Amino acid sequence: MPPRERDTARTRRTVLDAAARTVAKQGAGVSLDVIAREAGVSKSGLLHHFRSRDQLLLALAQDQVDTFAAEVRAAVDPADHAAGRLVRAYVKAIFDSLGDDTAISEHLLLSAALSTVPGVAEILQRDARQWEAAFTSDGLHPDRVLIITKAADGASLATLYEGGSNPAALERTRELLLSMTRGEGSFTG
Amino acid sequence: MPPRERDTARTRRTVLDAAARTVAKQGAGVSLDVIAREAGVSKSGLLHHFRSRDQLLLALAQDQVDTFAAEVRAAVDPADHAAGRLVRAYVKAIFDSLGDDTAISEHLLLSAALSTVPGVAEILQRDARQWEAAFTSDGLHPDRVLIITKAADGASLATLYEGGSNPAALERTRELLLSMTRGEGSFTG
Repeated sequence: MPPRERDTARTRRTVLDAAARTVAKQGAGVSLDVIAREAGVSKSGLLHHFRSRDQLLLALAQDQVDTFAAEVRAAVDPADHAAGRLVRAYVKAIFDSLGDDTAISEHLLLSAALSTVPGVAEILQRDARQWEAAFTSDGLHPDRVLIITKAADGASLATLYEGGSNPAALERTRELLLSMTRGEGSFTG
Repeated sequence: MPPRERDTARTRRTVLDAAARTVAKQGAGVSLDVIAREAGVSKSGLLHHFRSRDQLLLALAQDQVDTFAAEVRAAVDPADHAAGRLVRAYVKAIFDSLGDDTAISEHLLLSAALSTVPGVAEILQRDARQWEAAFTSDGLHPDRVLIITKAADGASLATLYEGGSNPAALERTRELLLSMTRGEGSFTG
């Protein structure tokens, strides 16, 4: 990447990270001034990358789904060619992020704040359809995929519902879900 | 209940509901003045019921877990004496609340805000232990209970992760989880 493009990408990243922190703390109504200050850039510098708050929030939502998809891709075991390899990577990517209760709480606050922004629902719906399509060719029964992925999502709520995640309980849930991706305990008959 | 006690209970309820709405919107740092205004009571009236913001936030956290426990108890089918009746009620209580994306988003924002308040973790941990004990005598394998309850919890995140909950998908997940409480598709072998 030429130096100027690299700088552009770096500033964009800095602004998105600052926006994630401030929106998680203050909600989607946070001003561009506050985000610019948190990012350590001028407001005109920020506006050079994102034309408006709406555009920044939509880019942030897209960045969140892209980052998670990249984490799942990175968690795919290249030596694993059995059915369920993508679901296994999904479970691993989620549980890898569950050690830090503060980070999860911030992530959920950010997601809840973004969910109220017009246009974000469409980004999430498109992403959900892409996951559904990807899981269709992963070789597991759709009911099994549904239960495993919902249970993995639900595990992140222990921070909010159980007063923090218990490492032993997380490990037990993770192993149980991974065993379900290997077709063990076939619950669909 | 004598009239004075009834008034006291009613004001307490009004303040807790107002606190829930304002904390969901503005976080756990919201002032007692803002909560009193939202509740339509004087600040001294509020302080008569809750001595401090900390005490109000702890009461709110306790109220949240008590309300959910009451919803689950109300969802228990009195004619159902089979193993898994409590887990079935848990699934029904969760899915009954999932129609309204705004309410779920508010509930998650409130839970995330409360999770940062000192003392709330202990309330949630005690509640989690009570659920674990109750499920122990419900007659299902603990792994099955774990997967079903986590997947039910995770279903509420469709609002945040999938751009809103899809009624057909919710119904499919609900039916699948209820069938799992009846021991169908034994996934633990």
